[in-house]
Amino acid sequence: MKESEIIKKLVKTFDYTDRSIIEGPGDDCAVIDLGDKKNFYIFTVDDLVENTHFLMDYLKPSEVASRLVRMNVSDIYSMGDAVPIYCLVSSGINDKKIDNEWLADFIKALKKELDFFGVKNIGGNISKSETVFFTLSLCGKVSKKGITRRCGAKAEDILCCVGNMGDVKAAVETMLSKKRDFFTSDEKKLFGSFVKPRIYKDYASCISKYASSMLDNSDGLYRSLEIISEVNSVRVKLDINSLSFVASKSLKRWSVLNHKDFKEYVISGGEDYNLIFTVPEKNINKLKSDIKDVHIIGRLENGYGVDISEYEGKIHYFEHF
Amino acid sequence: MKESEIIKKLVKTFDYTDRSIIEGPGDDCAVIDLGDKKNFYIFTVDDLVENTHFLMDYLKPSEVASRLVRMNVSDIYSMGDAVPIYCLVSSGINDKKIDNEWLADFIKALKKELDFFGVKNIGGNISKSETVFFTLSLCGKVSKKGITRRCGAKAEDILCCVGNMGDVKAAVETMLSKKRDFFTSDEKKLFGSFVKPRIYKDYASCISKYASSMLDNSDGLYRSLEIISEVNSVRVKLDINSLSFVASKSLKRWSVLNHKDFKEYVISGGEDYNLIFTVPEKNINKLKSDIKDVHIIGRLENGYGVDISEYEGKIHYFEHF
Repeated sequence: MKESEIIKKLVKTFDYTDRSIIEGPGDDCAVIDLGDKKNFYIFTVDDLVENTHFLMDYLKPSEVASRLVRMNVSDIYSMGDAVPIYCLVSSGINDKKIDNEWLADFIKALKKELDFFGVKNIGGNISKSETVFFTLSLCGKVSKKGITRRCGAKAEDILCCVGNMGDVKAAVETMLSKKRDFFTSDEKKLFGSFVKPRIYKDYASCISKYASSMLDNSDGLYRSLEIISEVNSVRVKLDINSLSFVASKSLKRWSVLNHKDFKEYVISGGEDYNLIFTVPEKNINKLKSDIKDVHIIGRLENGYGVDISEYEGKIHYFEHF
Repeated sequence: MKESEIIKKLVKTFDYTDRSIIEGPGDDCAVIDLGDKKNFYIFTVDDLVENTHFLMDYLKPSEVASRLVRMNVSDIYSMGDAVPIYCLVSSGINDKKIDNEWLADFIKALKKELDFFGVKNIGGNISKSETVFFTLSLCGKVSKKGITRRCGAKAEDILCCVGNMGDVKAAVETMLSKKRDFFTSDEKKLFGSFVKPRIYKDYASCISKYASSMLDNSDGLYRSLEIISEVNSVRVKLDINSLSFVASKSLKRWSVLNHKDFKEYVISGGEDYNLIFTVPEKNINKLKSDIKDVHIIGRLENGYGVDISEYEGKIHYFEHF
């Protein structure tokens, strides 16, 4: 079974009809009403697994920590006017691969990253494991007025994003082909997007004032657009020419040097953790005056599916699993 | 670093002074005040890792599911008048080891176990991993009046427990020495304590009315008593003769057949998930009239450390890591 099939099987098996569960699986976070007047509580979990998400001898412990925290808090901020609050850290440790120095550096960096996002550690677990893994469970809150879910978009809404896309796909290919000592300055920047992705924590709350739906782009742009289409029963038209503005300069220069089409990286990349959202046309000018670096990348229409008809390149699905 | 050293390092690094954090690491659950008048929210995480906690070709998927759920909800109930409510399930899956049938059986059993304890799944994560692992994060609540922590015990309190101890250590040794097809009826019962430990969910709330402190026995009796001593600055005197009543009949028969001392299994076992608690003397008769199968196994005294001076056998520390 693929990840998506397993999730379908889980959703079919479990019962999400409890009144306190505003949203179960299917959005970036589970949304729970614990009776607080102003806020919902939100929950998410994600992990970094050796040889699937990172190579032990390639990343520094501080880089594993920053990626672990950022990929997780991204899910919290993508819920709109939201903040992460508490975390539990669970880990599978192999003492042949992780020594005391590695662990001390990891813990130090974890503390720094959690502090940066205002997250308080409240506990965790350590197990012995041949494969090294780290699991971060987060609890946060989102204001009931400022929640921005994947659903809520309508035909005629404007498709927007903040942040670059495609960098991580290029970084992963680079890591698989050479040692980091030989990185060009552009490759160093792409690698930086992988180990310490920029999280739009100061944007999400502002975006939530204007947006009709939002998600983080962890599954890649094409899959993100499919999700918007599926959840909202709309057709999503992507403006291919706009992708020049959402690709970083480093990705564009790297693509030229490596005879690649940067648009393929933007469309089929994954784990970029920027924000994709939809905005009713009447709000777009207010949003643009508040956030200068928002990109308009398309529009929603009546219908179904994703329209990238102007694009002639390849589409790959990014699969986490 | 050992597990205990890593936890000390983590506790030293992180800051648990936030007013909402009633208890960080150091108890069975983290205890958080989210502003509810009557209840605290409690959080715990634990995982099952292949080759550390279970062997893929030894356990059925339903057994992995039952053990995963029970070892986790045990931490919730050991907080006293508490119930588990929500869970996130994270997993590392290896498709060479886990096929669709295995996964379907696991999900079915997981649902059944979660339903039994009233836990609602609200999401999760699936990653590819060479080593199979499952991580369960739980959120529950405990009444502010009925919370029973590890601290709170005083000299002269009576040391009590419910449930058997030592079964799991005997089960693990049996699993390592023979295939399950060759289990005797006693070995089947011991194995049952491993894959589907009894959880004292209907006892915990009642015990909380009388107890001064409580913990689940996941680290083994000797370590549990050390914890009571350390946290409460008391000396814990164990009545060795009482151990005859807390060892199961299966363990006692198995010990005779295998030339073992059952007391060693009770004292040095681990992962039994029964409840250990302390009760002020004035409450003991009321407790015994409410719960018939409570065992008195010792007493707290002024001083420090664990007194098992009547015991001449070995003491092993149970190490999860």
